Amino acid sequence: MSTQAMTAEQRTAPTGSETTGPVTLVNSFVVKPERDEAFHQLWTKTSEYFRRQPGFVSLRLHRAVSDDAQYRWINVANWESEADFRAAHTGEEFRAVVTAPEWGEYPSSPNLYEVVTTAG
Amino acid sequence: MSTQAMTAEQRTAPTGSETTGPVTLVNSFVVKPERDEAFHQLWTKTSEYFRRQPGFVSLRLHRAVSDDAQYRWINVANWESEADFRAAHTGEEFRAVVTAPEWGEYPSSPNLYEVVTTAG
Repeated sequence: MSTQAMTAEQRTAPTGSETTGPVTLVNSFVVKPERDEAFHQLWTKTSEYFRRQPGFVSLRLHRAVSDDAQYRWINVANWESEADFRAAHTGEEFRAVVTAPEWGEYPSSPNLYEVVTTAG
Repeated sequence: MSTQAMTAEQRTAPTGSETTGPVTLVNSFVVKPERDEAFHQLWTKTSEYFRRQPGFVSLRLHRAVSDDAQYRWINVANWESEADFRAAHTGEEFRAVVTAPEWGEYPSSPNLYEVVTTAG
C-alpha cells in the first residue's frame, strides 16, 4: 500500500476571492473498499475536531454504491462563512489531526463551493 | 476548445449492488470560469427533466470559490431510491437531454452514493 504524504496545506481547500456568505466543503477521498471501516473510524475521529469549531453548520458523509468510483467517500460540509472555515484550518490541533500518519493511506481532494441553485 | 464526446452511459453513474434506501448523486463538472453562465443555463435546462421524474427529492448545485478546482461545478442530488434514479436515466428524453451537443464542452464525473453519517 503506497503512502501519500499530503501536507496540512494540501488537506485544505484552496482559497478563492474571499466570499462572505455560507460555503460548502466537498472533500473527496480515495479509499479501497476493503478499508471502508478503517477509513470511517479515522474520519469520524478527525471530524470531531471540525464539528466543534465556530461556524460549523452540518455535514453529510457519503460512500459510493459502486466499487468503481474514483472517490469512494465524499464529505459535504456546510460552514457559516469562508472565514470560519479558514479559521478552523489553522493551528496546532488542526495540523495534528490532518497529518496523522494513518491519513497517508487516503488521498483527499478538498474544494470549497458556494451553493448557486437549490430545488426540492 | 476541445469537444469531449461522452455517451449517455458515461453521463450516468455506474451501478453497484442495488441499494434500497435513499441515494445521492454527486455529479462533478469541468467548466472554464469564463463559461460559468453558459454552463449554468445548460445545466438548468437539463435539470428540468430530472426534477420532474418520480423519486427526485432535492438538489443543490455548487460552484467552486477558487478557479483552481478541477471540478468547478458539482451537483448533489437526492433521490428516494436507486431504482428511481436508474429509471430517470433511461428513455428517449433522457438520451436527448444529456447528449445535446452543447454538453460536449463540459466533461462530467457522475457517481452514486449512500449517506453514511450526518451531523448538525
